[in-house]
Order: sequence, then structure tokens, then C-alpha cells
Amino acid sequence: MPKQSIDRREAYPFFLPIQMRWGDLDPFHHVNNVTYYRYFELIVVTFLAERAGLDLLDSPLRTFAAETRCLFTKALDFGRSGPAGSFLDGGFCVDHLGRTSVTYGLALFAPDDNEAAAQGHWTHVFVDRDTARPVPIPEAVRAVFAETRRR
Amino acid sequence: MPKQSIDRREAYPFFLPIQMRWGDLDPFHHVNNVTYYRYFELIVVTFLAERAGLDLLDSPLRTFAAETRCLFTKALDFGRSGPAGSFLDGGFCVDHLGRTSVTYGLALFAPDDNEAAAQGHWTHVFVDRDTARPVPIPEAVRAVFAETRRR
Amino acid sequence: MPKQSIDRREAYPFFLPIQMRWGDLDPFHHVNNVTYYRYFELIVVTFLAERAGLDLLDSPLRTFAAETRCLFTKALDFGRSGPAGSFLDGGFCVDHLGRTSVTYGLALFAPDDNEAAAQGHWTHVFVDRDTARPVPIPEAVRAVFAETRRR
Amino acid sequence: MPKQSIDRREAYPFFLPIQMRWGDLDPFHHVNNVTYYRYFELIVVTFLAERAGLDLLDSPLRTFAAETRCLFTKALDFGRSGPAGSFLDGGFCVDHLGRTSVTYGLALFAPDDNEAAAQGHWTHVFVDRDTARPVPIPEAVRAVFAETRRR
Repeated sequence: MPKQSIDRREAYPFFLPIQMRWGDLDPFHHVNNVTYYRYFELIVVTFLAERAGLDLLDSPLRTFAAETRCLFTKALDFGRSGPAGSFLDGGFCVDHLGRTSVTYGLALFAPDDNEAAAQGHWTHVFVDRDTARPVPIPEAVRAVFAETRRR
Repeated sequence: MPKQSIDRREAYPFFLPIQMRWGDLDPFHHVNNVTYYRYFELIVVTFLAERAGLDLLDSPLRTFAAETRCLFTKALDFGRSGPAGSFLDGGFCVDHLGRTSVTYGLALFAPDDNEAAAQGHWTHVFVDRDTARPVPIPEAVRAVFAETRRR
Repeated sequence: MPKQSIDRREAYPFFLPIQMRWGDLDPFHHVNNVTYYRYFELIVVTFLAERAGLDLLDSPLRTFAAETRCLFTKALDFGRSGPAGSFLDGGFCVDHLGRTSVTYGLALFAPDDNEAAAQGHWTHVFVDRDTARPVPIPEAVRAVFAETRRR
Repeated sequence: MPKQSIDRREAYPFFLPIQMRWGDLDPFHHVNNVTYYRYFELIVVTFLAERAGLDLLDSPLRTFAAETRCLFTKALDFGRSGPAGSFLDGGFCVDHLGRTSVTYGLALFAPDDNEAAAQGHWTHVFVDRDTARPVPIPEAVRAVFAETRRR
């Protein structure tokens, strides 16, 4: 496990507030680490739909997750004083932009904490819906990715 | 299956906005019906923590779900134009208030729809954390329940 | 909450072993009650695919859940001595068979326990995939349902 | 994304059959990639409980996930001919054994396929339940890990 520095909010150009659910808690009263990938997924599809204009369900191309990864540095609690405080901030950036694939940087921040509780990567390959073969990332999408690089 | 009328928003005194997740979708592109109970759970624990002041994790009493039920009337979609529109409204009321148990009425509303997409019930029994035996609902909690009856 | 007798295994003509997952546990170390509906769903689709011969993903008709319900009588534990003991038995029967809808009886049994830890109902309406309008249950499926009534 | 060879079954000394659930499917009719981590988790806790003899819920030490990672190479389908064929095989090995942490190798295999559909890593740090500080892996557990190295 190589040492890795903890990400800060300023590295991420796009944020999505994420509502934690009681059902995300594990027997240790923390948000379960598997759930972090569920949060990552929501951040990614939100960016793709809202910013990059992709129709995820019906477009002729699909995104196939080739690799995902997460480092966990701080436990995330579901607000004991009430779920009103139970939103966290999901950060998104583009770390590598290839011809048919893209790697996002992702991080989760507790409210009022500038250091990531978790950070990771998610590599998407763009594939043809029918053949599942890689296809070039559409130019309009590529342009949006290019503007969203890690700061 | 007896006919049952569809609930409207005005019946519910408490609402919680609920963020849908991509991962809630099933192979038919709708929010999976099992997930509706996950939404109900979040509404209930939010009310208990925020309004009724219960410490769900550490208090000497616990709430045990004795019965849950849901009628599904309309499919819920995850916003195709982007998850920005992907919040729904969860309604909560008290339908029956007993000595050691309470039955909540619950409903889910799509934005801009006054008719429930789903509605149901959830019965909680208050039990001692250690013995799991029913205990009377604390007076302060009972008072809050009494003020939150279905309109 | 009307009193209801606890179901026994002999009432159910079809059983499916269900593997519990660590991720099914809630902060109280029990299988979370919402997850019971995930188990019910698996029992139902298994019966429909294996016994009734339905192609759930590609057939011209779909099943739409109109109502689900569960009574919880005993907590289900994920085996502390190891997940080897972490299968439970899901029971399935047909309680009501209509022209376009069917109501299943469902129950979950801990190993070596003849009394249901939970029992419930699940009503499916058969609908046309495109119009979402109710359609008659196919004769072959109806015949299988008729042979699977509660004992 | 560096090229990486696909793992084969013979590399893994421990296997756990994993029951896929209908609810694991995403809108593209495949097992959702986030769910793979849920499978990994089940493999890990099963090994820890059954083979390494750890009481995950009540022991004075806990395991904290420090990093997880997964490469996805083949889509996993929920058996269309019926869920009877819907078990996959989860492989487990130890890739790195430190003083207070251990890294597992994990892989998922479709039935009758010797090549992994997905493979990854999971790093656990052993921590004191109360202080959350790293503690040495108990000798008995370490011995079991040492016998379970990747082949």
C-alpha cells in the first residue's frame, strides 16, 4: 500500500451533494465501504447526463466500467443528530482522457471537511451498445471532459 | 386486491425529499419496487431522529418493524434529462398510535404530481434494547406522533 | 395490527435456499427488514423463470408488482460461527389466482426452524411490455400457478 | 490503464459460491459493477469467519478497509434459463501480508469459465475496536493468511 496524499476539495471542478441513507450503514454504524462505489456511480452518471449530455439508457453507445478503485481514509457517519446533516459532497474530475476511454477522479467529503474521506478512480470505456466494441468518445463529450480536468 | 383510493399530498403532514440513485434502477429502467421500502425507511428514521428526538443507535429502546406494506400505482423514473430532477417527495403521517406500537402512513410522490406513486404502512414496536420486549412509547415521542396524524 | 398466526413450512410447496450477505446486516446486527423484500423478489423470479418458464427480461409481457407486504416475527442473524450456516429457506405458494393478476404467499425460515421468521404477500399484475396494460396470465403459467396453491 | 493479464482459477486457494440476485441487475441486464464489491465483501468475511476464526461482530479488534479495487473484464449475467444457474465462484488469496495489514486478491468466475470475469484487491487494516488504531494481526490469523497465498 503506497502512501498517497489525501485529496482536497479544490482539486475537483464538479460536485454533487449525495444523500446518505440509513440503509447505507453497516453493523459498525458507519457507511459501508461498498456503498462508496454506489455514491461514485451516482456522481459519474449525473455528470454524464447533466454536463456531458449523454442519454445513458437509450443512446447508441454505452459506458462500460473497466476499473474502479477507492482509498478510504475517514469513516463517514450518518448524522446522529438527525439526517438533516446527512448529505455529503461528491467531487468529480477527469484524470486521463483517451480515445475510447476516460478515467475519472472521485472523492467524498464530509460537510465542513476539506479533506477527502475517500478518493478513487473510475475508468469508463465507451462501447457500441450492440457489439460491445470500444468506440471513440463523441467530440462533444470529449470537449466537456477536457474542461473538467483535475485542478 | 381490494380497490384503494390513491393518496394525495395534503394527507401528509411531514415530507422528506429523497434523492434517487442510478443504482435504484432495475432492468426495466424503473426504480425497483424493493427500493421503495428503502425510501420508506429513510423517511421514518428521519422523522424519528429529527422530529421525535430519538437516538436510534444508542438509546435504551429500539424500534422493531413488525409489519410493512406498499401499494404501487405509478412507476418512478430516474430523470432521463439528468438526475437534477431525480428527487422525489416522501410523505409521512401517523395512522394508528398504540401503547407500545405505532403505524405510520407513507407515500412517495413524483415532482409535480399530487397523486402518490406508491403508498403504504409501516408498524413499529418499541422494544427494550436488551430484552427485545415491548415497552411503552416515551411520552415525548407519543406527543409528537399525536401531532402528526393523517390529515 | 390484527393477530395473525405464524406460517409453518408445510404450507409452502416451493422452496428456494437464499444466501444471506454480510451487506444485508443493519446497525443492529440483524438482516435489515427491507432486505426481506429482496429475498421475496428472488424467490418470485426464480419460481417464474424455473417453474413457470417465463423469460422475465425478453418476453412480450411483464410482471408489475401491485402490492407487497411482510410481517416480521423473528430476527434473522447472519451466522456468527461463520457464513456456512448463512442460508435461509424461502417458501413460495399461490394464494389467489385471478385473470390478469396473481398473489403469492411468501415466507422466510431460519435453518432448523419450522416457524416463519417472516411471511408476506406479493401481488403481480401481468402487463403488456409496450402498453403496460393488464393482459391475461398465459395458460401454461396459470396451470403452474394452479398446482402451487398454499397447502 | 496498464494492461493486466486475466487471472485463472488455479491462482486462488479458497473459493466461495455466490448466489446472484435479481436485484443485482442494472438497466443493461448485467450484474451491476458496484455489486461486485458486495460479492468481494462476502468472500472476505466468510474467509475471516470460517477459516481464520475471527468473530467479526464482537471481537476486540476490527478490520478496516483501507483500499479496494476491481478490474472488470467480462459481464456477468443472471441466468436467463433460470436462476438455478445463477451461482458464480468467488476466489480468494493473500497477496501481501504485513504486520497490521493484509491485502487479499479476489476474483469472480462464471460457472464453467476458467478466466476471471473480474479481479481485484482488498486491503484490510486490523484496528482496535475502541481506539481505531492499527494493531498487529493475531498470530493465529496470520498463520492462516500465510497458508493462503496466491498460487
